[in-house]
Amino acid sequence: MTSRMRHEIGEQPDALRTTVTSLLPQLDAVRAVAGRTRQVLFIARGSSDNAAVYGRYLVETHAGRLATLAAPSVATTYRRRLDLDGVLAVAISQSGRTEEIVETMEWARSCGAVTVGVTNGEGSPLAESADVALLTRAGDELAVPATKTYTTQLAALAVLAVGLGAQVDPDDLLQVPAEIERLIAATEASDALDAAVAELAKVPGTVVSARGIAFGTALELALKLKEACYLHAMGLSYADLLHGPIAVVDAETPAIVLGAEESPTLQGTVALARRVTEAGARVYGIGGGEALAEASSLALPGPRLPEWVAPLGLIVPGQLLVERLARTLGIDPDNPRGLRKVTQTGA
Amino acid sequence: MTSRMRHEIGEQPDALRTTVTSLLPQLDAVRAVAGRTRQVLFIARGSSDNAAVYGRYLVETHAGRLATLAAPSVATTYRRRLDLDGVLAVAISQSGRTEEIVETMEWARSCGAVTVGVTNGEGSPLAESADVALLTRAGDELAVPATKTYTTQLAALAVLAVGLGAQVDPDDLLQVPAEIERLIAATEASDALDAAVAELAKVPGTVVSARGIAFGTALELALKLKEACYLHAMGLSYADLLHGPIAVVDAETPAIVLGAEESPTLQGTVALARRVTEAGARVYGIGGGEALAEASSLALPGPRLPEWVAPLGLIVPGQLLVERLARTLGIDPDNPRGLRKVTQTGA
Repeated sequence: MTSRMRHEIGEQPDALRTTVTSLLPQLDAVRAVAGRTRQVLFIARGSSDNAAVYGRYLVETHAGRLATLAAPSVATTYRRRLDLDGVLAVAISQSGRTEEIVETMEWARSCGAVTVGVTNGEGSPLAESADVALLTRAGDELAVPATKTYTTQLAALAVLAVGLGAQVDPDDLLQVPAEIERLIAATEASDALDAAVAELAKVPGTVVSARGIAFGTALELALKLKEACYLHAMGLSYADLLHGPIAVVDAETPAIVLGAEESPTLQGTVALARRVTEAGARVYGIGGGEALAEASSLALPGPRLPEWVAPLGLIVPGQLLVERLARTLGIDPDNPRGLRKVTQTGA
Repeated sequence: MTSRMRHEIGEQPDALRTTVTSLLPQLDAVRAVAGRTRQVLFIARGSSDNAAVYGRYLVETHAGRLATLAAPSVATTYRRRLDLDGVLAVAISQSGRTEEIVETMEWARSCGAVTVGVTNGEGSPLAESADVALLTRAGDELAVPATKTYTTQLAALAVLAVGLGAQVDPDDLLQVPAEIERLIAATEASDALDAAVAELAKVPGTVVSARGIAFGTALELALKLKEACYLHAMGLSYADLLHGPIAVVDAETPAIVLGAEESPTLQGTVALARRVTEAGARVYGIGGGEALAEASSLALPGPRLPEWVAPLGLIVPGQLLVERLARTLGIDPDNPRGLRKVTQTGA
């Protein structure tokens, strides 16, 4: 039987088409708030936090604005006020109902920030309360692991970056849906998918690494492997990894290494893959073109997209890997233990 | 034979006394740069990055300024410029010679930031190049895992927070050395230390969790467990953990949970410990007073210090745990595989 998760992975091209078409006309609204602010502060948790990491690198590298992540506990637990004048606070929540995120966004506004809400929850508290709501159009997502709500969040953040002045061609976003269709077919046709699943089913943990604009993808894949496969998956930038935790990599602890095909981080990503294989560990490469594939033990295809939108496709082979690995391990990927769809994280 | 790491753990009280005494007279210099800036951007990697996480929460919760972490690749790999006018860029590096950190600090200055360097390397490029150098006085550190250079960095960041207007009593810092002496003795006298080591020696991985001002301590302990014990240690705030990765916790994956005795995050920390034990997993509590000890399977003592300086002591039982676990696993804690003392992470 096909899992809901696999079904929703396949719905991503349509969800992205609808989302991008509906958000591009909001560029003027984004430009209006962009003009009143000089930096971005993302507010998120879980998969949305990983989307924020993408948004953070994208805004800094392409729109030239400082963009960082908020610590919600400062607002919700310590209840301290900061001077957020000139800050664009971008809160991201799939449901738009996670109390901590809504509360932190309202705190940010009370501290002087202009607010943007990115959510799939039309009419949700986040959508209603934000100065500008960027609604994703993913439709209902029933599997617990976020897939189409995550990639449509990335699309919303890409539109946000364009509105903040990113020097890119917005039409690149229109290439993404067809590229994901190709990527799903190519990944499932690849012998490497089953081979990687068979190997990962035998190890307790793995490192997941990338850098820069692809780093959020590594964190998201690591989160999914923890949530749905109960794997000890450690998401690290390759710079962090080489600075210390590389010691953890060995014959029982492989690395999944991800990269966009055209990125200034690709050279370092390939060097990491070589170093890990030299240490006697297996490397599963995702994306990164021929260079990363050659340096990897097994290689899954990546998206042929400009770096700034590559993460919208780069997570997809990882989603397919997680779904298949969960089933191989006897886990229902739609309902992993201990999780619900709308998460409340308060004390 | 006593390891160098254990020896250096014991040198922390003296290193902290010397560091605090030498840095408190620099408060006026910090206040001068504080007056020219409105927010803080930390630049660091590895253990220094975990120190920065402490600095970030401390500055936000006690000095009321936005404080976030930089993405060095934006400077060193993407080579993009940001508007950093009004930003205090605080670069942290034990050696003061990690090229990536020095380069990112110089980039920050060229983008308009005022710079502070926190380093144990007197005369190092970081110390020489920063507008204000806060030198830690840890002396030479020979074991690869940072201990006294880490806690003295925390002391420097505590002094920085005071200079930025934190509403605290700076004399609290003077209590720390004696409290660490007590804590080392109490931890080594505790049956729980050997019991926790014996249990952790049998599992492939662990979750390490805390929140707020203690969160950086969880990240640092997770890093040490990866570096020196090759454990799959996943550092997560309890909010992140409950949002998804809690699924990973089971009979083979215990949790180490840390907290200060007096903190608005303590209630959530205790609730996490209860939830993990209810899931059938073991919990090793560090600190958090009676409340956390009662909710834990095994409890190590924590520092009796005000929350804002508690992390200077809270890591110490964790350091002792790492050193003993490494030896139990047959690893030389002073020289784990794959690591050197001064790390270069460039592509």
